[in-house]
Amino acid sequence: MTITITAFESSPDRGRGLARDMRVRWALEEVGQPYEVRLLSFKAMKEPPHLALQPFGQIPTYEEGDLSLFESGAIVLHIAERHAGLLPDDAHARARAIMWIFAALTTMEPTIVERESARYLEGDRSWYEERLALVDERIRKRLGDLSNRLGDREWLDGAFSAGDLEMVSVLLRAKGSGLLEAYTNLAAYVARGQARPAYKRAFDAQRAVFLAASSR
Amino acid sequence: MTITITAFESSPDRGRGLARDMRVRWALEEVGQPYEVRLLSFKAMKEPPHLALQPFGQIPTYEEGDLSLFESGAIVLHIAERHAGLLPDDAHARARAIMWIFAALTTMEPTIVERESARYLEGDRSWYEERLALVDERIRKRLGDLSNRLGDREWLDGAFSAGDLEMVSVLLRAKGSGLLEAYTNLAAYVARGQARPAYKRAFDAQRAVFLAASSR
Ligand SMILES: N[C@@H](CCC(=O)N[C@@H](CS)C(=O)NCC(=O)O)C(=O)O
Ligand SMILES: N[C@@H](CCC(=O)N[C@@H](CS)C(=O)NCC(=O)O)C(=O)O
Repeated sequence: MTITITAFESSPDRGRGLARDMRVRWALEEVGQPYEVRLLSFKAMKEPPHLALQPFGQIPTYEEGDLSLFESGAIVLHIAERHAGLLPDDAHARARAIMWIFAALTTMEPTIVERESARYLEGDRSWYEERLALVDERIRKRLGDLSNRLGDREWLDGAFSAGDLEMVSVLLRAKGSGLLEAYTNLAAYVARGQARPAYKRAFDAQRAVFLAASSR
Repeated sequence: MTITITAFESSPDRGRGLARDMRVRWALEEVGQPYEVRLLSFKAMKEPPHLALQPFGQIPTYEEGDLSLFESGAIVLHIAERHAGLLPDDAHARARAIMWIFAALTTMEPTIVERESARYLEGDRSWYEERLALVDERIRKRLGDLSNRLGDREWLDGAFSAGDLEMVSVLLRAKGSGLLEAYTNLAAYVARGQARPAYKRAFDAQRAVFLAASSR
């Protein structure tokens, strides 16, 4: 059965691999499942056909036969549950890998996204810099806790899992701000994720969309 | 095997049922599993024994034999996967119920929590009201999209599921702000969740901790 995902026709991050279809592509590459991509304009994302698939008018979505899903976290977990390679066999280790998906998406990502929304939505306000300093303090607290937990481990809990895939994807959003770079073990962890062949294939496939769009 | 969760010894919400152990209690009540609660002071939450269980120094945690988990979303999913009552049997419906857990925690909750953090962490700044208006606009957008999707359904996708448990729990945090109340179908949906016997038992158990603490 063909898997079809949706992605930005023209990604606002200019092909830097941050749009959330990247996480789904990466998961599919890790488990060796081929997929097709339907590209959407910003306009099409907010129109009834896409809203029927994704009520918030966002990407990514996932379709396979008569199953249709949205939420990148749920899609990655769905892929990980159905194909070997992203969750350990041992029941407890599996529960912990899923725990790290939630830690990435509900503990780490919100404050990192707040920093981005601040720039987009509040960047023109006189108090932007003052607020940014407060947000950065919260991000540092979270990164510090995570850095302490990771220590000198290669991955969060034994072998590479969907939890690492999500955590690396989330931390990547803080790269370049100087925040991530202050924690050398986290920066090295992210680099290990990016060095995986499956990550690279996913990144190149997403970037090819951007390059094609910008050459038109 | 005994299930032990952690909760605030003295909840900052003064027993209003918003601390995240409530979601775990509710899930355990829905599936009829007894549990014990270890109460933690704010000080104890940030000390090594608890940090070994929860690297961010937060509640709740979940222990059962030699499995230990944190992240309320992961704990609720773990409970739902192991006991009947919170996930449908049909594989596609089950994947969609899990999708709604992620929609609650990664699409709806972050902007609602931003409103709370704004009050706690930025409430004394001159620009607080100006920023609150921007945050409220984002919350209204999300609530409007969710309201459109819910329509006049009783629950998000067929029978009550862990997805509804999480969504109701998240929407409850917006109650009283006037934001939720503007969407009558969402307000009624939340009220249906709160009317469930399992919700009430969990709420009463959490509230009893607050009442005991405040009578000391
Ligand atoms: N929680 C959702 C978030 C999806 C999301 O924020 N998608 C972004 C791209 S990464 C989007 O479509 N943004 C455009 C918009 O919100 O209008 C998920 O993980 O799938
Ligand atoms: N994503 C975590 C969030 C946990 C969380 O924020 N817990 C709050 C209580 S609801 C807490 O412990 N706050 C105290 C603190 O952060 O110091 C989860 O869902 O378990």
